[in-house]
Amino acid sequence: MAKALFVVLDGLGDRGAKTPLSEAKTPNLDKLTPSASLGLMYTLGPGQIPGSDTAHLALFGYDPHKYYPGRGPFEALGAGMELRTGDVSFRVNLCTLDEKGTIVDRRAGRAAYGLDKIFQTLDGTKIGDVTVRMVHTVEHRGAGVLSGPGLSAAVSNTDPHETGQPVAEAKPLDSSAEARKTAKALNDFTAKARELLADHPVNLERKEKGLKPANMAVLRGPGLYQQVPSLVDRFGLKAVCVAGGALYKGVASYVGMKVLDVAGATGTTETDLKAKAQAAVKARDEADLIFVHIKGTDAGGHDGNFEVKRKMIERVDAEFLPGVLGQFDVVVLTGDHSTPVAAKRHTADAPPVLFWSETCRPDGAKRFTELAAGHGCLGQFTGTELMHFILDYIDKGHMFGE
Amino acid sequence: MAKALFVVLDGLGDRGAKTPLSEAKTPNLDKLTPSASLGLMYTLGPGQIPGSDTAHLALFGYDPHKYYPGRGPFEALGAGMELRTGDVSFRVNLCTLDEKGTIVDRRAGRAAYGLDKIFQTLDGTKIGDVTVRMVHTVEHRGAGVLSGPGLSAAVSNTDPHETGQPVAEAKPLDSSAEARKTAKALNDFTAKARELLADHPVNLERKEKGLKPANMAVLRGPGLYQQVPSLVDRFGLKAVCVAGGALYKGVASYVGMKVLDVAGATGTTETDLKAKAQAAVKARDEADLIFVHIKGTDAGGHDGNFEVKRKMIERVDAEFLPGVLGQFDVVVLTGDHSTPVAAKRHTADAPPVLFWSETCRPDGAKRFTELAAGHGCLGQFTGTELMHFILDYIDKGHMFGE
Repeated sequence: MAKALFVVLDGLGDRGAKTPLSEAKTPNLDKLTPSASLGLMYTLGPGQIPGSDTAHLALFGYDPHKYYPGRGPFEALGAGMELRTGDVSFRVNLCTLDEKGTIVDRRAGRAAYGLDKIFQTLDGTKIGDVTVRMVHTVEHRGAGVLSGPGLSAAVSNTDPHETGQPVAEAKPLDSSAEARKTAKALNDFTAKARELLADHPVNLERKEKGLKPANMAVLRGPGLYQQVPSLVDRFGLKAVCVAGGALYKGVASYVGMKVLDVAGATGTTETDLKAKAQAAVKARDEADLIFVHIKGTDAGGHDGNFEVKRKMIERVDAEFLPGVLGQFDVVVLTGDHSTPVAAKRHTADAPPVLFWSETCRPDGAKRFTELAAGHGCLGQFTGTELMHFILDYIDKGHMFGE
Repeated sequence: MAKALFVVLDGLGDRGAKTPLSEAKTPNLDKLTPSASLGLMYTLGPGQIPGSDTAHLALFGYDPHKYYPGRGPFEALGAGMELRTGDVSFRVNLCTLDEKGTIVDRRAGRAAYGLDKIFQTLDGTKIGDVTVRMVHTVEHRGAGVLSGPGLSAAVSNTDPHETGQPVAEAKPLDSSAEARKTAKALNDFTAKARELLADHPVNLERKEKGLKPANMAVLRGPGLYQQVPSLVDRFGLKAVCVAGGALYKGVASYVGMKVLDVAGATGTTETDLKAKAQAAVKARDEADLIFVHIKGTDAGGHDGNFEVKRKMIERVDAEFLPGVLGQFDVVVLTGDHSTPVAAKRHTADAPPVLFWSETCRPDGAKRFTELAAGHGCLGQFTGTELMHFILDYIDKGHMFGE
């Protein structure tokens, strides 16, 4: 059975004559490139700016216009929470209120001390027939899930996204009873959280240590979970995910990938790339496709730091590729979107795609760059189409007609 | 009036650095190539694997997601049968049952002796108000049509697709009365066919000759015929078809092409290519577009035989092109899909397209190859879009807006 390696360097694509990719020293990639097919992927379609979540849905072959549930469910799944159809999930920030209830720090001073316990206190809160589940993820962040009958994701955030404001009142965004009920549950939760956290032992300890109290949890990015057909259901594809970032694990989990825990995979520029390569190679025994997500390139883009992005690409070449090249029948390397250093945000520029197999049509390019990919023999395609190229090359494609 | 020649080398596209197309000696094509525009055609869209039937619908400008009726009607039309809206058509195999009713040979030993008469015996069978029509095509194969009120194509095959099984029971695939009626008619036909063929004179003769009896007909690929708007209706395009294979004649007939009978056009690697060229040139008087289908390239791909595929391309260059080049205002040469030698099946790899007219944008490529097409100035497009390029160059296009 043919095995595919699908490597996504987050935000890989860039703009300009010299890009982090074009300027990176990548001797291992340079050996592979001439025998690969190149192309350009407009992840969601030409001119569309992908979010990280929608981009990955598309990369996994799921049209986000059909399958995107909002961000919350991915955060919850990525945090290892179990979701059932009808659950409404959120991203959660712990923050600091003053005595008047005004948010004075949206991140509780970015001090992580004791925040696990704060989330544990909030977890299990009952609001009528609605149960609130919460888990801590990183820093001041967590994921939250409302479970109960008749809930809706058509509600506004309780996170006002700025300081100097009180916690925002959740409002129903449509006229349904479900939206009204969910908004009321969120506002009741805000009141309960204030009670539960005001004199919380952790906050007393934080006060003693000169840290800001984490005395409120604000929610954003609601999403209604519905189970979708898995990659196995749709394509007969067994896939595993090697990633550090929770979001990517969440999207992978949503489409039915097995998510591996890889020690040292952090989702930062410090991630252990050799460990990821080893995990990917080992996972061949249990899967048709191994998805590897590497986040650091995106961080360089968002920070406008050319060197960070370039060096991350060089690290991938030096520390990741040697462990995986020669171990797979199909190797695909791309980004989920572009995060150009000059833009410091996601853009609609198409990320370049390198598609290699022993039998592919080799473009003969010397270097894998945005420009070479723009002239590549695969042409232009979308994220969901890329997955179908991969499926075809590992004999998992479906013929329409006879 | 401008005349277009549209030549499809079945399964032309291939994979790898050296392909049958790139390695074929094609001096005539090489003279045309530099003055042609090249491009890549994802027949049904990037990543989609086309069947032969859906691919040709797309090439003729008919979106198969809208117009594909299943395989059966094309087989019946290709066999020269007339279809009316509501008819349900099938591919038919004559096979051999043992005395217990188990299929012991799905092809009746591949011996054609007397099979015309077997099909004639089955033709005209009445099942209540349903009439079964059948014709012999090639080898052990034929086409069958059920006509009558209230029929449906939502039925399973009676062909079990393997030996050691009895004839499969046709089952309704939805809960409609039409599907139930059609399934019952098929099962009644199975019983009648057994009676009609058990002691058929041809089978007695076959027995004497040591041949396996053709004592059952199994059906597959049901399709409900509905008349679709013709090429004349949609585009004002008069087209003729020069093909050997019945399927291609069937799709051509479905869209309203006039199907020529060309002596020596066999749909095999032995087909008479000079006769096809002559027929194409002669047909200019009665049509705007002449579609020529050449099958042998696909056979090489399916057999994994590089040399068969390469030589077929060389035969097209030596025996077909000299007769047609210089005789048409537009010449388009492509495949319907790729059948790479390494894959031995249809794949999603885009077939290359050569598009020539006196006034086209010449790419200046030295050779027509998959790679050159991937870098061609026409870019990438789908099968239905290619037909619109052709329509435009022969002044049959339709402007949207003013």
